[in-house]
Parts: sequence; C-alpha cells; structure tokens
Amino acid sequence: MGGNITVANGSVEMQVADLDASKLRINLSQTLKDIPAKETLSFGQTMTDHMLMMTFDPVYGWSSPEIKPYGPISVDPAGSCFQYSTNVFEGMKAYVGPDGKPRLFRPKMNMERLARSASRVALPPFSTDELLKLVKKLVSVESRWIPVAKGYSLYVRPTIIGTKPALAVGPSDHAILYVICSPTGPWVRSGQKAISLYAVDEHVRSWPGGTGGFKLALNYAPTLMPQAVAQKLGYDQCLWLLGEDKKVTEVGAMNFFVVVQREDGGWDVITPPLDGTILPGVTRDSTLKLLAAHPSKSVLPGLSDSDKLHPQELQMTMADLRKLAEEGRLLEAFGVGTAAIVTAVARIGFEGKDINLPTHESGMGPVAQALYDRIIDIQMGRFEWEGWSVVCE
Amino acid sequence: MGGNITVANGSVEMQVADLDASKLRINLSQTLKDIPAKETLSFGQTMTDHMLMMTFDPVYGWSSPEIKPYGPISVDPAGSCFQYSTNVFEGMKAYVGPDGKPRLFRPKMNMERLARSASRVALPPFSTDELLKLVKKLVSVESRWIPVAKGYSLYVRPTIIGTKPALAVGPSDHAILYVICSPTGPWVRSGQKAISLYAVDEHVRSWPGGTGGFKLALNYAPTLMPQAVAQKLGYDQCLWLLGEDKKVTEVGAMNFFVVVQREDGGWDVITPPLDGTILPGVTRDSTLKLLAAHPSKSVLPGLSDSDKLHPQELQMTMADLRKLAEEGRLLEAFGVGTAAIVTAVARIGFEGKDINLPTHESGMGPVAQALYDRIIDIQMGRFEWEGWSVVCE
Repeated sequence: MGGNITVANGSVEMQVADLDASKLRINLSQTLKDIPAKETLSFGQTMTDHMLMMTFDPVYGWSSPEIKPYGPISVDPAGSCFQYSTNVFEGMKAYVGPDGKPRLFRPKMNMERLARSASRVALPPFSTDELLKLVKKLVSVESRWIPVAKGYSLYVRPTIIGTKPALAVGPSDHAILYVICSPTGPWVRSGQKAISLYAVDEHVRSWPGGTGGFKLALNYAPTLMPQAVAQKLGYDQCLWLLGEDKKVTEVGAMNFFVVVQREDGGWDVITPPLDGTILPGVTRDSTLKLLAAHPSKSVLPGLSDSDKLHPQELQMTMADLRKLAEEGRLLEAFGVGTAAIVTAVARIGFEGKDINLPTHESGMGPVAQALYDRIIDIQMGRFEWEGWSVVCE
Repeated sequence: MGGNITVANGSVEMQVADLDASKLRINLSQTLKDIPAKETLSFGQTMTDHMLMMTFDPVYGWSSPEIKPYGPISVDPAGSCFQYSTNVFEGMKAYVGPDGKPRLFRPKMNMERLARSASRVALPPFSTDELLKLVKKLVSVESRWIPVAKGYSLYVRPTIIGTKPALAVGPSDHAILYVICSPTGPWVRSGQKAISLYAVDEHVRSWPGGTGGFKLALNYAPTLMPQAVAQKLGYDQCLWLLGEDKKVTEVGAMNFFVVVQREDGGWDVITPPLDGTILPGVTRDSTLKLLAAHPSKSVLPGLSDSDKLHPQELQMTMADLRKLAEEGRLLEAFGVGTAAIVTAVARIGFEGKDINLPTHESGMGPVAQALYDRIIDIQMGRFEWEGWSVVCE
C-alpha cells in the first residue's frame, strides 16, 4: 500500500507511485439507471452505473483510483492503444452468495494474469493486491446490479490501455487502467443447448512464440472474420487448429476439453497443455482441479464414485478426434471459460465432414454437466471449495 | 461518389452510405500552432493543427467527413478498439515538389492495403478513391507543415478503429476513420548511420495463417518487449525469425533486404516473398521495381550500367546469412519502409555471435544508397517515375 514500483523511462530506471487502494475517491452518479429484467440481458451489452479508473504517467506513476459514473474515455488519436494495440483485459464474474454478500471467483488468478499480460506488451506494472481491493470495492458499489439466479452474474472487465500519444513504435509509458461491469445471463440463451464448431486451419489463432498464452486484446481481432465465415457455414464457433498436423487448440474464446472412453472403463478428460499457444484459463484450471478431486475429495454432482475421471493435458490432432469418434470413444467435447463457464459441443465440422458427438437430453454430457453445476455452486457460494469464492467485504 | 456499400448487419445484408468526399466539411482551427524547427523533430511526436475524421454506424453508413482541429477521440470503455484491437492503420508521406505543390508517394497502394486490413479484422468497407481525395485535401490544408529538405516530409497516418460498445466478441459495426499528420525528419538522426539487429527466434512476429501480411495495429504490441530486450543488449532493432529453420522475415517494422555477390559478378538483391507472414510494403514493392528497371530503363544513382542487379523474392535462413557472410558474399543488408525509406544494417547478433556487414564511409552500401537517393528523388518530385509521385491538387 502506498508503495513504489520501478519502471524503465527510456534507459533510466525510475521509482514511481504504485497503485494505492487507500487513495480511492468515490464519485457516485447523480442518477442511477434502471436495471433491465434479467431475461432481457444479452452478454456485455448493458453497463452498470459506475466504473473504476486510474491513469499511469512515467513521472508520477499510478494516479489515485476513482470510482465514477460510467462514461467515455478520451485518448489522443496517436495513442498507443489505437495505433499499436497495447491493450490487455480480464474477465471475472461476481455473484451474490447465500449470505447476501457479493463474491468473486478466484480473483487473484485474474489479477496475476493481468499483470503478466501487461508485461508482455510493455505496459506498466502494478500491485495486484491493491487492484483486487479496488475491484472488490467496485463490485460492492455495483452490487444492486448482480442478478440473483443460476447462470446469472455480474461480468467484471478490468482493462488496461496504452495511451502514449506518439507514432514511433515503442512501449507506452502512459496508460489507463479501468474496470467496467455488465450484468449477464447464461452464455447460450437456451440454457444448455450444445454448440457446433467449425475447425479452422487456414487462419491460426496462436502459434509458438506468439501471444496466445496471454490475455491480450490483440488475440481477438484476427478471430472475427473466420468466426463470421463459420457462422455463414452454419456453425456457432471456430475450433482453432495449429500446424501441419492440425493440433486442436481453443474453441471460440474458450479452452477446449474432450471426454474419451478408456479401455478400463474410466474416462480421460483431455485439454491441450499450456505450451504458450493456450490461454491459461481460470475455468480451465478449475476444471482440471475439480476433475482431479473426483471422487477422492469430492464426488461431482450427477456422477458417482465409480465414475473414474482422468484429467490430462495432452496435445490432440483432428485426426485423433476423428479416430476416437469413429471408434465410438469420443463421449463429450466442451469449451470452458469465464463468460460461458461450460458449453457443450454437438458437432465439429472439418474438411467437409462433421464429427458428431453423442446427444444428451439436457444438451450436456455427464462430465460437462457435472462441472457446470459444481463450478456455479462454488461461484455462488453454495458449495465451499478451497476458498475459490471470495467475498467482497 | 455518394454511392452505397453493402455491409452485413447480423445475418442481414444492408445498403448504407459509402464515404463521400464531396460532403467534406472543413472546420479550421482558430489558433494555429508554431511549427518547430525541423532539426528538432522526433518521429511521430509533433502533430499538425488538424485531423480528418468520419464515423461509421451500421444504419446510416459513413458520416460526412470533416477536417477539424486536432484533438482527442472519445470512445466507450467497452469499445471494440480497446477490448479486441479492431484497429488498422497506414503510413504515408507527403513532400513539397519543385512546383511548390504537395505530393504523396504511390498513395493508392496505401488506400488499398488499408481496405484489405480493415476487411481482415471485420471493419466496414469504404471507397478507397474517396478516401484518397480526402487525404489529399487534408495534406493541402496542412501543407505549411511539410518540411522542405532532403529526408524530411509530412508523415500521414490514416487509422480506423472499431468503436462498437459491447463486450461480446464479434465484428465492430461502429468505427471511426481518422487521418493525422506529423512532420518528420530522417529516421536515423545522424542521417545514414547503419543500425544493428538482434535476431529473435524466441518471440515470433508473424506466422503462416496469422496477420503479418496486413497492416494491423495488433502486429506491433507483441514486438515492444522483445525490442526493449534487444536494446538492453546493445542492438537497435529486432530481426524477426520464423520456424525451426530460422527463416529471416522482417526487421523492426521494415521489410528486409540483403545484397549477395554472385559468381558472375552481379548482385542478387533478396527479400523474403509475400507468403502471408510479410507485410506487402510500398517501399518494398518500389525497391523491387527500381532494381528490376536498372540498368535497362534507368540507371540507379551512384551505380553504373555494368552493375548487374538481380532482385529476388526468396526465403533465407540465418544459416544462409551466416554462410554468405563467412564466404565474404554478404555485401549489404538493409530495411525498407515508409518511415525510414532505407536503413542500412551494420551487424546482426544471433546466438551470441555477430554477423558483421562490410562498412561504408556514408554508412550505406552502394545498393542501399542508390535506392535511398532514387526513392527520395521520386518522392520529392525531382525524378519522374511511373507516376509514383502524386500531386495533391
């Protein structure tokens, strides 16, 4: 608190002010918005009344944080965020627990990933502990916006943009860090309908030595055009492939999992390893840990302790998936991420042929359903697990 | 002029207004800035008095363009440009010709590349002819800012940013197109000092199926941290490598060329081919065309018609460069781009060892020098070539 950080100013290292949550000023909006009925919410469309904001300049460091009415951000046209995409973000979700208190899900992981992302695009460092205090405060201020129903939450979007107003390609020594909030419902409107994927190898989301392992704004713009093509072809999302052997990497903006029947009767639950091309997702990590804890530490809902789950971080190719499907061993495929939590996959189109996954009445297979139910219960504070649900005091 | 464009609005195709230069409104600044002495200019730091700006919305299309006082741009915090880096740009240069009229260099190439870049990140289309008319008008309005001296020019930066205020990952159906100008001097301050390169394989600028062949803002943020590392190690710029065989791709934000001694006494002048990982640079294209025209159509300055130049678009690896250097056949290396025009390379650091290029009194080898002198003469309207220098009437 009130500490300093060391930043490079040209070739000189300088001590400047770190983020300091104790300096927060709160300037509440004079008129509050009406909160729309939760059934009408579409992801990321409705913003709350306030935002958290602070700025960085290379002489002073981080300014006093402020919670203030939500409103536009003004940046010089030569600003680094427009010209060179020095922009990073996080996705988090807030819930109201049974105690009536707002909660965040494993928020330290988001804060630490945000700091790593910022460093990757040469944005200034900051105290992740101080930022978390400020995010909690913002969530408390906006708590009336948190919808209270299964699958609903307040989506929280910390963002840092580089604002140095200069056209020479170089690190942005000016920045704005802000956090905005948007009430949101289940990702797939119908609740749990499974989605279809179009496997894309012509366009590559991420590559070795690239930035796919960081949560950078720039990882997303290249996906928009292929995604529009996939939708024209009748698919919901892209399945991103990599390399000549067509390794499976991510699905849309989610981590990808499959459930594979083993010969011993158990199920392998496989996701690609964190080799630098894969986002180290909070939901991905949570999924792997919950799978590993079943059944010894806790039996997942809807499963029994005779259902043996074997979480694996392994590379898989499209040929592997095709072969497993042909053998009848590809039981489930699903994406996981903060926005969607768990989204089941019904079919994967590749080279003119669909791989069809087994169908389930609820739309989700038993493993995806178990994870969805358990993660939401933890997030909403209805199931205590490893301190993952953190109260915003 | 005054035409329509077809855009997708969700699943519906709509006809909306295209850019229309005849609708330009000019709102001149009440107070004009003092123009700094040209010797004090640092690239991209000083902005002129005015900017060109127009906006796109999915119902109307492109707004009436406006030339107005230079000033900040206001965007919703959820704006696509901040969150998903839907930002593209161009770099152009304006000169004053011997006739006293401002000129642009091959500006249609920039307009067409901007349209391709916009399409790649799902930004709206626009008439490149209308935009060029508007850019010419802006250059005319700002012509007092064009420094008149060899190596000096007015740098012109067209930019499009996506402004859709929504957090769902999807195409931005709102955008701002703006053009700003900055007077600039020679890229390397000392005039023609050769730079040093640090060959980087740990971080990869571009990849097959990636976006390196488009001028997207997002190609630049990932280069900032490796560039800072290179500078700490005592090198000026990065030489970006690709793949296990360490193919040479680009240098800093420039296309890369080498001059190689042939057995027949001629010189191969080699640059990597446009395989999707290489920016199709205007200066790159101009360089290849000027080399091919020598000596049959025009002898390059400082060279004679017995100097045989063989332009080639070929992949080269670091092993190739090392071998050529060891054989004494690597005569020159240089980067080309709009900002720098031609920048000679003195040495390339790779795996702890430097490849040293032959030194020259002027800092540049004869081929780089010939290209630099010829391109500047064409740009300044002192040497007429293929209509490349275009007067802004």
